Amino acid sequence: MNIIVMKFGGTSLATIEHINRASKRVEKECKKSKVIVVLSAMAGVTNSLVDQVSKINSQSDSENDLILSTGEQISIGLMSLILKSRGVRARTWTSWQIPIRTSSDYGMARIESISSDNIIKSFSTYDVAIVAGFQGLSQENRITTLGRGGSDTTAVAIAASFKASQCDIYTDVEGVYTANPSIVPNAKKIDFITYEEMLEMSSLGAKVLQTRSVELAMKHNVIIQVLSSQIDKPGTFVVNEDKKMEKELVSGISFSKDEAKVTISGIPDKPGVSASIFGPLADSNINVDMIVQNVSQDGKNANLTFTLPQSELIKAEKVLENIKKNNIFQTYKTDNKVSKISAIGMGMRSQAGVAKKMFKTLGEKNINILAISTSEIKISVLISEEHTELAVRSLHSTYGLD
Amino acid sequence: MNIIVMKFGGTSLATIEHINRASKRVEKECKKSKVIVVLSAMAGVTNSLVDQVSKINSQSDSENDLILSTGEQISIGLMSLILKSRGVRARTWTSWQIPIRTSSDYGMARIESISSDNIIKSFSTYDVAIVAGFQGLSQENRITTLGRGGSDTTAVAIAASFKASQCDIYTDVEGVYTANPSIVPNAKKIDFITYEEMLEMSSLGAKVLQTRSVELAMKHNVIIQVLSSQIDKPGTFVVNEDKKMEKELVSGISFSKDEAKVTISGIPDKPGVSASIFGPLADSNINVDMIVQNVSQDGKNANLTFTLPQSELIKAEKVLENIKKNNIFQTYKTDNKVSKISAIGMGMRSQAGVAKKMFKTLGEKNINILAISTSEIKISVLISEEHTELAVRSLHSTYGLD
Repeated sequence: MNIIVMKFGGTSLATIEHINRASKRVEKECKKSKVIVVLSAMAGVTNSLVDQVSKINSQSDSENDLILSTGEQISIGLMSLILKSRGVRARTWTSWQIPIRTSSDYGMARIESISSDNIIKSFSTYDVAIVAGFQGLSQENRITTLGRGGSDTTAVAIAASFKASQCDIYTDVEGVYTANPSIVPNAKKIDFITYEEMLEMSSLGAKVLQTRSVELAMKHNVIIQVLSSQIDKPGTFVVNEDKKMEKELVSGISFSKDEAKVTISGIPDKPGVSASIFGPLADSNINVDMIVQNVSQDGKNANLTFTLPQSELIKAEKVLENIKKNNIFQTYKTDNKVSKISAIGMGMRSQAGVAKKMFKTLGEKNINILAISTSEIKISVLISEEHTELAVRSLHSTYGLD
Repeated sequence: MNIIVMKFGGTSLATIEHINRASKRVEKECKKSKVIVVLSAMAGVTNSLVDQVSKINSQSDSENDLILSTGEQISIGLMSLILKSRGVRARTWTSWQIPIRTSSDYGMARIESISSDNIIKSFSTYDVAIVAGFQGLSQENRITTLGRGGSDTTAVAIAASFKASQCDIYTDVEGVYTANPSIVPNAKKIDFITYEEMLEMSSLGAKVLQTRSVELAMKHNVIIQVLSSQIDKPGTFVVNEDKKMEKELVSGISFSKDEAKVTISGIPDKPGVSASIFGPLADSNINVDMIVQNVSQDGKNANLTFTLPQSELIKAEKVLENIKKNNIFQTYKTDNKVSKISAIGMGMRSQAGVAKKMFKTLGEKNINILAISTSEIKISVLISEEHTELAVRSLHSTYGLD
């Protein structure tokens, strides 16, 4: 039995008209294969549910998940009614009907197992199984949710469990681009991208796929296609390295404005001091990213700069105030008008000179680099936020992506 | 273990503020007993879901039920969060978690069984179980709904299954009144009413309790209290006949404007003609109520008048057009500007003169009676809709209810 997975995000389901259009893609595919459709909530629905809940309770709670999961329950029902009205043999599946078993980490649960029996059995009567994304069932038999963007993860996990031949993620763009087209008008759609590159892109600001879904696809070798729900043409395939013939030096440029910078001054230059700062931050679940340490000229005191997600800045400040009380350092200052620009490409592993090119380009544009971090396949720099667009455009051109 | 059931309707849950107020009633009760709370959706939510669904599909379908059931899923989640924020040990229960098993008549399912094990077990950890009303689980493991107002039925069925000592139905009025207070300003709250009287009232237009829930309560001897969620005082108890000491001649006056009248003329006066008219109507699930037959003066042709719910008039007209084609009768006309006024009371069984009083009162007010129907404990008349308020007020006074 050939099975394909088709996932539609909230913007592709924003109105009944949108759902109708998406349903026509499903109708076309179900003539060739059995189809498992995975849906998000209609655009805006989950946000308004979150608003309602957050007025009462801001912490994770199984009741939050019960409430938030209703958005997908509605969208799958509507999609099924539309398909059935056109004679397609479709039916819905909530996570507890399948079931999709998850951990009990309400609000950010991890998928543990997916039973394929019920849906496979249903394919003797139905051609399309419409699954509620973003949610699962805990060991206590309560509804969980997988965190924002979790429907991507549902789709990939289902593709893996059902050994689907395709996992198509329909969205409002035509695929993954070499850069954000709203900033770089001549950004190009990428035809093939490796899991590793996609992972870096997702975690460095490209909002196409949830990071966890890419990790899962890589682990289970699920080929993902990201494509438009509006236009009928091939999108971007996310594949294993060996499936991608040409390895460009740089595949794409991404950026994130959700960064904040913290600079700590007057740190005595002795062992264990870093731990006394980063230890408490880690204990508070604050994700520190780029770290730069400068020893002062007198050799006694050091400065320390690091970045963290802007959303964690207030929490971090509280932790830092506590550390400061113990005289670990003298002062600190924060800056959230910063931006992280990254160049990503498998080709970097075998070719040198990528970093040099980046520094030269930014230097020529008089853009100051505040911090640097690198991995095997990416190089990121922190710059002042006001230079974001200029930097992205310049680098896009420098690496021959125009 | 003493268990009580508290049910709140949509108007008592219209906003977070309303839910908050309702939760305080729950908090108070759960200090004395274990509490099972049954909730409707927040006011307006189910209607807007119905609107969305009916744009695609107007027939009953399991997907409709999946969508419609989300309203209660949200209200129980919010109630639980609010209770927990005040330290009450509460948790939610969807119909599939309990489970509440129903027939597979989607959109109007009937409760078949309720397992008490899971909730009873949970009472070692929790004091309050918050149950989604209006819904159940079919044998196919899919969500069903019980029809509008079904949360009353859920509450009574749960009270019966858990042998609850109380089944309190909280609403936006103080109880059951001798007549609609918006029409009869000096209508009084009834302290005790029998199941039979309540059944007649519900089916004759009083919108306090769903008829099915009263039937169920009568069958299982569940004492219902209808009371206000806003004001803390006793409401109306719906009880067995032997619990009600005084049996008033008439307990209340109700009315329904949702009626339509059909008059068929030129029916040959011979056996089997009635069946050839009412047979096809019954086959189309049209509920005919009052029937009046007049033989014409020449003794050859008869006229037939009957009433039916206004909502079924269009369907009935189609059936009648078909019958007419077979020359069963000559013509028919319809009128939906009619109203049914009923006087209800257990006392009627032992005392005569109720009907006479009604005819005399309406006659004095020059109100023409179009049809009459009676049962052991009620008498209903059909009148022109414009006289509804006058008739209700006059009868309320005639029977000494002012």
